[in-house]
Amino acid sequence: VQNPGASAIQCRAAVLRKEGQPMKIEQVLIQAPGPNQVRVKMVSSGLCATDAHLVWGEQKISDLGGIGCPAIAGHEGAGIVESVGENVTEFVPGDSVLTSFQPQCGQCESCLRPSTNICKKYDLIKSTTDVSTARTLDGQPITSLFGLGVYSEYITTTEHHVFKVNKAANLEHASIISCSVGTGFYSATNLAAVYEGSTCAVWGLGGIGINTLFGCKYNKAKHIIGIDVNEDKREIAAEFGCTEFINPKTLGQPVEQYLMDKFGGVDFAFDCVGYKPILDQAAVSLAIDGTMVIIGAAAKEVKFEMPAFNFLFNRKVVGGLLGSKKTKVAYQELCDMYVDGTYDVDRLVSNKFSLDQINEAFQTLKDGNCIRSIVVFK
Amino acid sequence: VQNPGASAIQCRAAVLRKEGQPMKIEQVLIQAPGPNQVRVKMVSSGLCATDAHLVWGEQKISDLGGIGCPAIAGHEGAGIVESVGENVTEFVPGDSVLTSFQPQCGQCESCLRPSTNICKKYDLIKSTTDVSTARTLDGQPITSLFGLGVYSEYITTTEHHVFKVNKAANLEHASIISCSVGTGFYSATNLAAVYEGSTCAVWGLGGIGINTLFGCKYNKAKHIIGIDVNEDKREIAAEFGCTEFINPKTLGQPVEQYLMDKFGGVDFAFDCVGYKPILDQAAVSLAIDGTMVIIGAAAKEVKFEMPAFNFLFNRKVVGGLLGSKKTKVAYQELCDMYVDGTYDVDRLVSNKFSLDQINEAFQTLKDGNCIRSIVVFK
Repeated sequence: VQNPGASAIQCRAAVLRKEGQPMKIEQVLIQAPGPNQVRVKMVSSGLCATDAHLVWGEQKISDLGGIGCPAIAGHEGAGIVESVGENVTEFVPGDSVLTSFQPQCGQCESCLRPSTNICKKYDLIKSTTDVSTARTLDGQPITSLFGLGVYSEYITTTEHHVFKVNKAANLEHASIISCSVGTGFYSATNLAAVYEGSTCAVWGLGGIGINTLFGCKYNKAKHIIGIDVNEDKREIAAEFGCTEFINPKTLGQPVEQYLMDKFGGVDFAFDCVGYKPILDQAAVSLAIDGTMVIIGAAAKEVKFEMPAFNFLFNRKVVGGLLGSKKTKVAYQELCDMYVDGTYDVDRLVSNKFSLDQINEAFQTLKDGNCIRSIVVFK
Repeated sequence: VQNPGASAIQCRAAVLRKEGQPMKIEQVLIQAPGPNQVRVKMVSSGLCATDAHLVWGEQKISDLGGIGCPAIAGHEGAGIVESVGENVTEFVPGDSVLTSFQPQCGQCESCLRPSTNICKKYDLIKSTTDVSTARTLDGQPITSLFGLGVYSEYITTTEHHVFKVNKAANLEHASIISCSVGTGFYSATNLAAVYEGSTCAVWGLGGIGINTLFGCKYNKAKHIIGIDVNEDKREIAAEFGCTEFINPKTLGQPVEQYLMDKFGGVDFAFDCVGYKPILDQAAVSLAIDGTMVIIGAAAKEVKFEMPAFNFLFNRKVVGGLLGSKKTKVAYQELCDMYVDGTYDVDRLVSNKFSLDQINEAFQTLKDGNCIRSIVVFK
C-alpha cells in the first residue's frame, strides 16, 4: 500500500501572497508523501470564518504558526487518498477522507484521555509550522494553514491530519462536516452535553450556529432559541431545530432580560461568534446549573467575565474545538448520519464555486448571503 | 414516630443582636416541629467563614435572606433528632443527623437531575427567610441562618435540611463534615472529577482547602500543590495529601509562572478563598484541558475573568456548593469513611469550645490558629 516511488505533483492552488489581498491561482509543487504522510486529491473545500479573517486581512497567518505569506488557506476539506508514504497503515489510495484542523496522533497523554481532543503532539499552530515543508511555490516552502491549506487540488500532510470516512458519503458536500458541522453538532451533544427538556440559546446562526441548533434538537432540548441580526437565517434555523428565532434588533428589550423573564434563564448558552457583547449577554442569561459554551474564536484581548459568586450555583463555562469530540469518531459518526439521512448536510451547502472563483466565494461570506459556501474541485 | 404533642422548648443560643458585635448567650424558644419538620438536639457546630463574615460585621445577614438581626448564625452541625412533626417518615427520635445549608426536597426538577445539588424548592436564601419562624426570641421570630442557626442547643427546621447518617459516627466531630469536609472533598472528587496522575493546585488551605487536598489525593492526583501564606499550614497540608507547599511570600516568583514552568500549567486549579488576585492567578495557571474550580464565596463585585480564546483549548470553569454532590449521598459516604477510618475527620478538629466561649472561638478563625474550631454542646 505504500508508494515509495511517488513523485511530486504540479497542481493549482489559491495562493495568498499577502493577507487582505485577493488570492491568485498559481502552480504549486506537492511533494510525494514522506514517512507517515499521505497525499490527498481534494474533492471539495469549505469556506470558514478562520480562513476569511486571513483573506480579508483581519489576521496574520503568522499568528497561526509558520513563517507567513505566501500561504495556502483552507482547512475544511474532503478528498481521496492519492498515495501514502512509508509506515502508513491506516490508509490506502482511494480512501475517502476528511481533513482536520484537529489532528490526533492517537498515542499522547491527551489523545488517550477521553475529556479532550487536543493532541499534545500536533496542534493548530505547530501543524501550520511543521507540515508546510510538504509543498513548495517557486522552489520555496509555502505556509499551509493548520498543516492543510485545502484550497489546492492536492495536499500532502501527515496521516494524523486526515480521517477515513464512509465511502458512500458524497465528498462534494462532506467537506463541511470537518469543521462547521462537527463543531456545531458536537459542541451541543458532546461538549455541552445538552439534555432532554432543556432550554438552549444559540448566538450567531452561521455555519457553526445552525449545526449547534441541530445538536440541541438531536439531544432533545425543549426550547431552542436562535439569535441573529440577520432575518434571512430564520427559515434555515427552523429547519435545523430552532423553536424560536430572536432578532435582537427588533426584540424591543435586552436579549438577556427576555430570556430571564420567559425561561428563568437558559440551561445552555452558546456563543458561536466570539464577540464581547455576546459573551456578556450570554453570561447573564444562565439559569442555575446553566452552562456557557464558548465556540467562537474571540480576538486575543477579549475577556470572558462573570461574577465569581454566580459560579457557586453550578454555573459553568466550557469551550473547545470540534466540540471536544475525538476527531476520528466525530467524522465517522457524522458521515454515517449524512449517508443514512439523519443529517441533511446537503441542505447546508448553499453556494458552490470553482477554485478560480474563490475570491468571489469569500464575498458571499462577507455579505452573509450563504449558509455554507464551498469550492468544488474538478 | 410523630410527636404531635411535643411542646416548645426553652434553650440557650448565641444570639447576634447586630453584625460585628459579640454574640450573647440568650434564652430562645424552639417551637415543636410542625408538619414535615424535625427538632434536633445539637451535639456540635462548626465555625465557618460564612458565619464569621456576619459575626465580624463584614456581611449583613439580610443579604442571606430573612429580616435581619436578631439572628442565630451557624450552619455546620451535627445532632440527634429529638422529635418529628406530622408527615415525617424518614426520621425518628434518636437518629443521628447532619444539618445542611444545601437542603434537598428530593422531588423538584433539579433534585432529580444528577448534574446539580441545588434544590429549586429550597435554597440558601429562601431557607433563611422561610424557616425562621420556627424559633422565637422575646416572642418575636428570630432569623435562623440558612434555616439552621446551629449555635443553639436545639433547632427546629424542615426534614429536608437534615440528613441521617451512620450512628457509629462521633457527632462531636462529625459536624464539620456537613460543610468544610464535604465541600472540599467533593469539589475535588465530584465537581472537578480530578483524575489519576493529574496536577492540582489548591489556593487557600483553610477548612475547605485541606479537604480539597484530600479529595485530590483520594482521586490519585500525582502533584498536589497547596498554596497559602500561612506557614503553619505546611504540616497539616502534607498529612492530607499535599505533595508540595508553596508560600507565595517566599517563592521569589509569581505562582502562575512557577506552575507554568514546572508543570506546564495545572490540570485543576481550586480557589478556596474567593479573592480576586487568586482567581486571576489560577486562571492563567491552567494547562490545556485544565479546569478552574471556584469554591470560595467571592464578594458580589468580584469578577472571574479569562481570555475567551483560552477556553477553546478545553479549559473550563466550574463552581458549586458542597462540590455539587447530592447532600444525602455526600453525608452518608463521608460519615461512613469517617467511621471506617478512611477519613481522619478527628485530625481536622483543632479547637473545641463550649457555647459560652463562642466569641473566643471565632477569634481563632481570625488569628488563623486553627484547622477547624467547633462548639460542642453539653
